[in-house]
Amino acid sequence: MSQTTSPVSTDKLLQYLENQIREYPFGENPSALYEPISYIMSLGGKRIRPLLTLMAYSLYKSDVSAALTPALAVEVFHNFTLMHDDIMDDAPLRRGQATVHEKWNANTAILSGDVMLVKAYEMLLAAPSEKLPTIFRLFNQAATEVCEGQQHDMDFEKMDHVSEDAYIDMIRQKTAVLLGFALQLGAVLADASEEDGQKLYEFGVNVGIGFQLMDDLLDVYADQAKFGKQVGGDIISNKKTFLLIKAKELATGEQKQNLNNWIAKETFDKTEKVNAVTAIYNELGIDKLTAAQMHEYFEQGFAIYDSLSVPNNENYIQLLELVKNLVHREK
Amino acid sequence: MSQTTSPVSTDKLLQYLENQIREYPFGENPSALYEPISYIMSLGGKRIRPLLTLMAYSLYKSDVSAALTPALAVEVFHNFTLMHDDIMDDAPLRRGQATVHEKWNANTAILSGDVMLVKAYEMLLAAPSEKLPTIFRLFNQAATEVCEGQQHDMDFEKMDHVSEDAYIDMIRQKTAVLLGFALQLGAVLADASEEDGQKLYEFGVNVGIGFQLMDDLLDVYADQAKFGKQVGGDIISNKKTFLLIKAKELATGEQKQNLNNWIAKETFDKTEKVNAVTAIYNELGIDKLTAAQMHEYFEQGFAIYDSLSVPNNENYIQLLELVKNLVHREK
Repeated sequence: MSQTTSPVSTDKLLQYLENQIREYPFGENPSALYEPISYIMSLGGKRIRPLLTLMAYSLYKSDVSAALTPALAVEVFHNFTLMHDDIMDDAPLRRGQATVHEKWNANTAILSGDVMLVKAYEMLLAAPSEKLPTIFRLFNQAATEVCEGQQHDMDFEKMDHVSEDAYIDMIRQKTAVLLGFALQLGAVLADASEEDGQKLYEFGVNVGIGFQLMDDLLDVYADQAKFGKQVGGDIISNKKTFLLIKAKELATGEQKQNLNNWIAKETFDKTEKVNAVTAIYNELGIDKLTAAQMHEYFEQGFAIYDSLSVPNNENYIQLLELVKNLVHREK
Repeated sequence: MSQTTSPVSTDKLLQYLENQIREYPFGENPSALYEPISYIMSLGGKRIRPLLTLMAYSLYKSDVSAALTPALAVEVFHNFTLMHDDIMDDAPLRRGQATVHEKWNANTAILSGDVMLVKAYEMLLAAPSEKLPTIFRLFNQAATEVCEGQQHDMDFEKMDHVSEDAYIDMIRQKTAVLLGFALQLGAVLADASEEDGQKLYEFGVNVGIGFQLMDDLLDVYADQAKFGKQVGGDIISNKKTFLLIKAKELATGEQKQNLNNWIAKETFDKTEKVNAVTAIYNELGIDKLTAAQMHEYFEQGFAIYDSLSVPNNENYIQLLELVKNLVHREK
């Protein structure tokens, strides 16, 4: 597996991906079925998943074009989950634009999402025939876990107590396994060893959990000037993030009473609640605890990455840089 | 393709299918995701699609067990479409029982349906590796058309005029292609010639269109004592069936005025409307026209079936009998 590969540029790969997303023939008729697909795919995003597939592929082989359509399948699948999750969460906005069920209606979002899932499978079919059993098996596993994670997330909303382990497992399923799959897909397509494929999967899952913990942390501790949404949104909605779960576990006496009171309040001043709960988090050191947990997942992921049997070439470093840049998003 | 196969019994195949449906490990945790799957799969139905797969397989090969899990994939896919269609149609009942979105809620029906679609692909993976590219390509095509047909059906509700051709094409996509796929899947799994596979598909599509025309006809002309739902339901809701489309096309003068008046009425006595519109249908000979159209599709299908390169053996006759029994459902 130590063949030399040509260095790739993430910017060029991104451009390549964007072009292909615009040009892929999802379908045209009926337009009510296909317009929402073009719409959600055009809303942008970092395209991190297909980029990970192509970058993982480039660790072993140079002709990334061979991995392009399967890589896009992961992005299409991801956007399918967003389209359906937005219905379930009754979300009005996605990347600052109206969600599909708002712009059209829930039925359209259900059905366009369904056909997107079929299209994701169609795009995976662009992989070489002999790899299809492996790719479909891995993809089915990941897709199933993403659905399971979303259901656990919805179940948690109605539960009083959620354990730290159950939370980590939920975010692993809901967001991390798809990053793992994206990387492993690149490895499978590039004929990497099964061991390297598995390691790339584990790398993706670990950093994926880290990313979600970072999201939880940023929601409370981000700089409002740089943050895309309202800081403290999770606190306002009592969202059971890692921070709240940890705080409920550690708070005692008056602090616990205070935290429970804020959670139970039905009418409150938003800023006052955010400040009060953040103060409790600070007293309990929740920010440091979460950051430590997050770094543990990142370090675990990087250690696995470090053990790959690939040459320490430019692409190896670039993939690492890509992930590290995501880790060091502005707080 | 003229090897001898052992005769199969449809009753035994049905029993076999029911056992496997009960025993298939769809998943358990989270229960809110998997219970609706067991629920909808247990509501019964004729299991006509997987039965067609096994019967088509039995035309060429005897070991139907090799086709069992892929056959069930078609049934799981069909039930996924029912689960999502029921949300879109706001249907309270399915086979006399509460629909999933009524028994649980719409979010559960969306997400359980999603995972069912993934499970259908998982079950197709039980087919031999070398057949997967063909099977997935055919299945993706059928699944896409089913979604397109459902969208056309919803679009038609909001349109004043729907042409006969557009209607036939909608029912072809929404219901007929899956019957065609079920049959072709059996052929592919049994190593039948590509030509026979294609013919079985066309056979299924033609009789599938015939079945839907029969449903349209029965909705108006069935014997209420034997019919599972209210006779005239389509008339009451102004559903754009073949009968209404044809009547709007053929009615002139006072008849046309009369038909349009009944369609436009917002408050009316249901029995009166059903009787009045049925009378217009009778005057225009819509019943005979629809029956003739239906028989044309059936005959076309049977002629294609007749041209298969299989021995005229017991299984050949049994598959024909199975379909003919569906054709001669009580009016």
